[in-house]
This record gives sequence, C-alpha cells and structure tokens, in this order.
Amino acid sequence: MTALLERLRQIVGEAHVLTEGDLVAYEQDWRRRVRGKSLAVVRPASTAEVAAVVRECAAAGTSIIPQGGNTGLSVGSTPDDSGTQVVLSLTRMNAVRNIDRDNLSFTVEAGCILQSLQELAEKEGLLFPLSLAAEGSCTIGGNLGTNAGGTQVVRYGNTRELCLGLEVVTPQGEIWDGLKGLRKDNTGYDLRDLFIGSEGTLGIITAATMKLFPQPAAQLTAFAAVPSMEAAVRLLGMAHQYLGAGLTGFEVMGQFALSLVIKHMPQLRVPFAGLIGAPPYYVLVENSDSESEQHARERFEALLELAFEDGCVLDAVVAESLSQAHELWHIRESIPLAQAEEGLNIKHDISIAASRIPAFVEHTDAVLQREIPGVRLVNFGHLGDGNLHYNVQAPEGGDAKAFLNEREHLVNHLVYEAVAEFGGSFSAEHGVGALKVDKLQKYQSPVALGMMRAIKQALDPQGLMNPGCILPRQAS
Amino acid sequence: MTALLERLRQIVGEAHVLTEGDLVAYEQDWRRRVRGKSLAVVRPASTAEVAAVVRECAAAGTSIIPQGGNTGLSVGSTPDDSGTQVVLSLTRMNAVRNIDRDNLSFTVEAGCILQSLQELAEKEGLLFPLSLAAEGSCTIGGNLGTNAGGTQVVRYGNTRELCLGLEVVTPQGEIWDGLKGLRKDNTGYDLRDLFIGSEGTLGIITAATMKLFPQPAAQLTAFAAVPSMEAAVRLLGMAHQYLGAGLTGFEVMGQFALSLVIKHMPQLRVPFAGLIGAPPYYVLVENSDSESEQHARERFEALLELAFEDGCVLDAVVAESLSQAHELWHIRESIPLAQAEEGLNIKHDISIAASRIPAFVEHTDAVLQREIPGVRLVNFGHLGDGNLHYNVQAPEGGDAKAFLNEREHLVNHLVYEAVAEFGGSFSAEHGVGALKVDKLQKYQSPVALGMMRAIKQALDPQGLMNPGCILPRQAS
Repeated sequence: MTALLERLRQIVGEAHVLTEGDLVAYEQDWRRRVRGKSLAVVRPASTAEVAAVVRECAAAGTSIIPQGGNTGLSVGSTPDDSGTQVVLSLTRMNAVRNIDRDNLSFTVEAGCILQSLQELAEKEGLLFPLSLAAEGSCTIGGNLGTNAGGTQVVRYGNTRELCLGLEVVTPQGEIWDGLKGLRKDNTGYDLRDLFIGSEGTLGIITAATMKLFPQPAAQLTAFAAVPSMEAAVRLLGMAHQYLGAGLTGFEVMGQFALSLVIKHMPQLRVPFAGLIGAPPYYVLVENSDSESEQHARERFEALLELAFEDGCVLDAVVAESLSQAHELWHIRESIPLAQAEEGLNIKHDISIAASRIPAFVEHTDAVLQREIPGVRLVNFGHLGDGNLHYNVQAPEGGDAKAFLNEREHLVNHLVYEAVAEFGGSFSAEHGVGALKVDKLQKYQSPVALGMMRAIKQALDPQGLMNPGCILPRQAS
Repeated sequence: MTALLERLRQIVGEAHVLTEGDLVAYEQDWRRRVRGKSLAVVRPASTAEVAAVVRECAAAGTSIIPQGGNTGLSVGSTPDDSGTQVVLSLTRMNAVRNIDRDNLSFTVEAGCILQSLQELAEKEGLLFPLSLAAEGSCTIGGNLGTNAGGTQVVRYGNTRELCLGLEVVTPQGEIWDGLKGLRKDNTGYDLRDLFIGSEGTLGIITAATMKLFPQPAAQLTAFAAVPSMEAAVRLLGMAHQYLGAGLTGFEVMGQFALSLVIKHMPQLRVPFAGLIGAPPYYVLVENSDSESEQHARERFEALLELAFEDGCVLDAVVAESLSQAHELWHIRESIPLAQAEEGLNIKHDISIAASRIPAFVEHTDAVLQREIPGVRLVNFGHLGDGNLHYNVQAPEGGDAKAFLNEREHLVNHLVYEAVAEFGGSFSAEHGVGALKVDKLQKYQSPVALGMMRAIKQALDPQGLMNPGCILPRQAS
C-alpha cells in the first residue's frame, strides 16, 4: 500500500494524494447515511493522470471510487470502511476544452460544476438546459455517471440525451476518446450510453461533448390549482398539444407538500393559500418561447382558458415578471427543505407512465393509509416525465425518527410493490448507488440483471471500479 | 440439420419455415450487392416463438440472421453463402400492442412497417416522426437495429431517441421484457441503447415502446438558394435561433445534385432552375408550428428576411400549400434516383460537426478533383444533423461501371481519410453491416473496438447472432 501511495504521489503530486486530515467531504455521502474510510483521496488534474492512477491501482488490485461533487442521493460515490479503496476525485479536471457555436456543443471536463456550465452557455447567448437542485455543487461527470434528470427533462431529456460524446478511462487504464460532437454516428455499439448511468462501475468519464440550445426569447411560468391528479395529467396533454416543444417544465405538488412550505417558510407567498385545504394538487407549468414574451403570454393564456373550460384547472396565475417566476419555482424547490423542517421522512424517486399515475396515486395512498393510519404523503415531482418524489412522513405529532426506524422497510416495500404493479421504476433519476442494490436485484428483470453482470465482468473483470454500486460485490 | 428444421417447423408451423422456391427477397441485400444462401427462412409469429427458435438454433450451433424489411444499405441482414444460417424474419410480428395517448407512446412489434406506424399515429391525431426513404417497406425492428436517422432528426433525434423501451430475445433464447414506457428510469446499465444500433448481433428486438408527439398545427417548407456551404451553416444557426424546436427539417443539396434532377426528371419544377450554374448549394427548411399556419408563415418570413439581409440566402420560396411543400420535398428525395439514372456511383453516408462541414467540403472536393480530374460530386443530405450523402460520380461521359471498378477503393480511401481528419464518422445513419466491417476496424478507436468485442463475447459467447456484421467473424 505504501508503494502504491508513493507511485500515486509521483503521478498527481504530493499535494493531491490526501491521506490525513478531515476527509469527511470525500468519505461521507451527501445525505450522511454512510461514512467510509479510504486508503487515499487522489485528485488527478488530467486524463493522462487519471489513466496512470487507474493503471497503478489495477496493478495493485486496489479498487477505485470515482467521485464528482459527491452530491448523489443513492450513496454511489462513498468508499467502504476498509481503508483500502482509493477515492478518485475528478474536481480538478474542470477545464472547458472548447465551445463550438455552429455545432451547438461544448466539450467540458468531468469536474466542471453544473452551474458554471449553465452560466458559461448563457454568456455565449446559448442554453445548457440541465438543471437540478444540486447544480451549485454537482459536477457534469457525476450528472453523466448517474444520468441525472431535473426540471427540464420534459423538453430536453435526461443527461444522456444531452450528451454527444465521451472521453473515458477504462478499468485497464486505457483512454477511449469518443468526444466527436456528432449528432449521427452509427459505428458500432453505443458505448456512450452504456457509460452514462453506469455510476463509475465500468470506467471513469473524464470529459464529455454536450449539446447546447438557442436561448429562448422568453420564458413564462404559471402556477395552477387542479381538482385531481387526473386533471393534472389532462392539463399535461393539453400543454403538449398547445405549447409543443415550448413546454419546458411541468411539476406537480400535493396539497400537503405545499402546506409544509406555507407552515415552515411563511415568507414565501404561495398562490391560492386561501384555497389550501380544498384543491388536492397544484402544478407549475413553464413555457419557453423562441419568439417573444408577448407571444408566450398569448399562447399561455389561450392554454389556460381552454383548461378552465375543460375544468382541469380551478385557478391559475401567470408570473408577471422574471422575479415572480423565480418565486413560483422557489416554492416548488422549497418542498424538500420544508419537509426536512417537519421531520425526517422516507424518500422515493419513482417513475410511472403519466397515464397510470392517477390510478397509482389513488391505489398507493389508500394502501399506506390502511397500513399506517394517519401517515402523511409529501407527493411532488416532475409530472411531465412521470417522475414523482412520493415521500412519506410520520403521522401528525408522531416521532419522526422512530417512524423511520420502525416503518421505513414496510413503507418502501408497499411503495415499490405498487410501483412494480403499475409498471414503474423504483429509481427514476437518482440512480442505484450502493443504497438500492437490493431493490435492483428484486425489481429489475433477471434476464436484464444477467446481461448487466456479463457486461460488468467483460469490461471490469477485476471488479475494481466502484464495487458494490449497482450490482452486488462479487464474492472473492 | 434436418432435425433442426423439423423442430423449427414444430415451433412456427410448416408454412413458415421456407427452404425452397424463390427466397431472393430474404437472401439478397437491398442494393443487390450480396446474394447469400440460407438453411431456411423462419418466420415466427410471436416473441415466444422467436425465443424457441433461438434456443433450438443455439442448441444446434446454428447462426441466425435477424431480418426486418431487408431494406438496409449496409448488408446487415443477408446470410452468407454457406447454406447453414437461419434467416429469422420478423415480418409476421406486426401487432400494435397498445397506444397510450396520455403517455404519448405506443408499443409495437418489430415487424410493423414504419409507414403504417406513421399512419396509425396520424389517425390518433398524433405524430410518429421517424421518416426515411424506405418507410413504405422498412420495419421498426430494422429501424431500431440500425438506429435509423432520416429527415426529422434535427428536431426529434435518431430512432434511439424515439425509443422508451424494448423487448429482446437474447442469444440464449431468453426474453427480456424492457417495455416500460418510462421517460426516466435509472435502474442499472442502459441495455436499451446497447441493443439499438447493434444490428442484430447481440439479440433480437421483438417489440418496442416508442414516443409519440402532438401533431403540429401547421408545417411550412422553404426552398432557398445559398451562396456557399458556409452560408448554409449560418442559415442553420439562424433557423435554430428563430424557429427553436419548430425547425424540423434542414436539408442541403449541391448544384450538381439538383442539375441531375432537372435533367432526368424534367416533370419536376425545381425552383430557381434559371439560376442553376450560379448558386453552389440549395437548402430545404421545414418549420413545424404548434399554433397556426399564419403564425408559421410570419415566423418563416421573418427568418428569411433576416437571412437575406445577412446574405446567407440569395433567393427563397415558401410553399403556398401542402402539395407544393410535398413537391419541394420530392425534389430532395428524387436525388438518389436521378443519380442512378446518370449511372452507378460511389455512395457515402458521413457525418461531421456542422461547424466543420464547409472546410471539409472545400478540402475533400479539392482532393478528389486533384486525384480524379473531372470527377462529379453529388453532395446532399441532412445538414441539420451534420450528415452528408457525399456521393461520387464518374467524370462526364465516363464509363460508370469501369469508374466504380477502378476507383471505388481510392475514392473511399480519400473520402474516409478526410472524414477522419475532420473528426467525423464514416457511417452516420446506415450502420456498419457486413459492408463496412473493415472501415470500423480502421477508423473506430482500438479501445472502443476492444470494448465492443468484449461486450459481444459476453452477451453472445457462441457468436451465433448475425456473425460478421459490425465486428469480424471470430476465428473458429
């Protein structure tokens, strides 16, 4: 081990092989569920250094935990507690290699912070649409590793759909340069999409060529009260029809989720606060327009008028200014914090075909109420993508910690069984990590699992890349 | 072999194991470059039958050539001439399993003809945007197997981006049901995108859940003369900015390509025919609008006005009616036929980042002229995706057949070397097939090739699925 550390120091420099001091930022997961102990945190500055580090680790039989901003929600980049694994942090690889305006693309290194890429694009008069809560700290490498989703997926897709090409260091320490910024390229198997979402278990993404888009001329946000989840889904269909690709955001919020925001963040002005208690769901709709604000407003108002007539909207407000639009989004984004203020809760990140969500919610709400009377559901999420954060909170006045200890297993079981029954996924956008390995074994098709194991074995026969993430550790 | 045929007959029925009579439609590739001889053509009617056929073939060590409409351009579904391979035709599996309007998706079997799916969507008031020359005969299974492109990619992406989930029969004859119609699903490796574009070498796609879109309220088509390829690329950028996601088609046509249409299809009214000789390139731009025809026309005219001012458009006409729009598209679509009328030619299906296409074309035109004085370039394609069909025709009056025999190797070498120099791909949308296996070995990265071989070996260790397609046959 000392010999390995010495060689790693020669590759990346003394200062970038961390073995002492406070390494909690690298060794603990974002939600503080797991704290590990690494052999060292290694911070290479270039693809060649990453490759050299991987070769040395492979020669030593030392496993590697690739890590970006370490903001993942599924414990996908935390070392175990053996003190034998190397955390390979990509954060020093944060160069923008080029911006190609005519090709609407840029090539960026894995350690670039997402928000800095959004800002860079904006400075160029372009849009990089990937947007999610952790954007101030997460890296594009982590976004790619987990195929991150976020709030703009209804129009622009997940991270996978935003990527044109990758640079990857393989488990053997070879460099695959797949950074061509091509929109069509049928030259063999789709390795790009295989690495995206593989959570560092097949190799290390060191750089990527990502799509850029024209900036919209105007963006409008509406907040609407709806009488039911069915109505929300109907409104989604109308918005697709009326706004076409102008529909860039479609979020749903349950009444209880909003009531927590009102309770714990009284400074936020939640529309229809007077109505609270009546409408069970609220939606936030975003319309991006390539023409003008006036045109956006006309289209948006025409849509809402139609929705009123249909009855799928009870009341609605369209933001009059950008700051008002930000306030509306801020309400939606404050739900997780408001929920935390109310106490610990059991989180889910599920997806179901939009058409089946109303029946799923009705069914699962009832099952949970039956099994745990008084349980409170903080249901919100990206309805446009069929993605709900269907979170479960202790009954009013209950002890949240005790609830978690005693009920988490049951609640997860009930929710995931219902998800399976409705043909959904137990992990929509947060990945599997180490947290949901058992869920993958249970709910993924055995045939698919067999193929995944075969691919892992084929590309990483030593099993050194992020072992125990996605797939169970191999018996050794 | 007799025993195998007997078992296959038991599975699919006597009538669907073809061993005699005229099997040319199954044994010869679309462009009639290769004629093989199969052991039998087997036509299963269900996924269970496909799986049973695969298991029997695997037990007998018999290799399988999956086949859809057999319209591929890269010899990807033709048996060899050994008489020992089974052609597995999916054409009887042509059911539409469901249409989910609220989820904007449908689940269809592999043998469905593309055009029938377009028509079905239209009847439902929806859009299935995949569109390409062979749509009247090609199947969705073949589109998925080759990750087909076509004319709407600039807005809707390739077949891969249109697919939500797959059902696949593995080389072991197991069935993977991955047909969830989810827009977010991060539960392990992306097997879906691995099978898409694998050209039947990893398993057999038997069904797919595909995205649907709202139908646009109006669609307008413009035909414009541009002073240079640089100008065409500049116009593309403006169209992205001005039309946003309304830009659904952006085709380029070289002057010589159009002159062939004028010469061989005098009944077609080509705009600016009087100008021919002057402007080197023409573009066809399609604008789809979710609002109205009037709105589409206003936006389109505003774009063209800007383009005139900029100088990137010399003259333009916007179709006044749907039939006029079809006529304009028909000109573009007639280029391959006009070219065939002029004589045999050497075809390419290349892609390059849009930003580098002007330099690529200038460079490669000059190289070809220097090496083969008088050579004629039929350059046209999907500029919006950076995809050119950069085809090469014998000098005026030359013997086309002799030209092909003597020059094809040199021409391919010069073109593909230039493509590589400009960071492009030698196969944009037609796949590798058996035709371009050597090109893949030469131009794909050795690291990528190593991973592809490892994946093939992992999923199809017997090497029975479409051997010799994409990757060279394994030495046995």
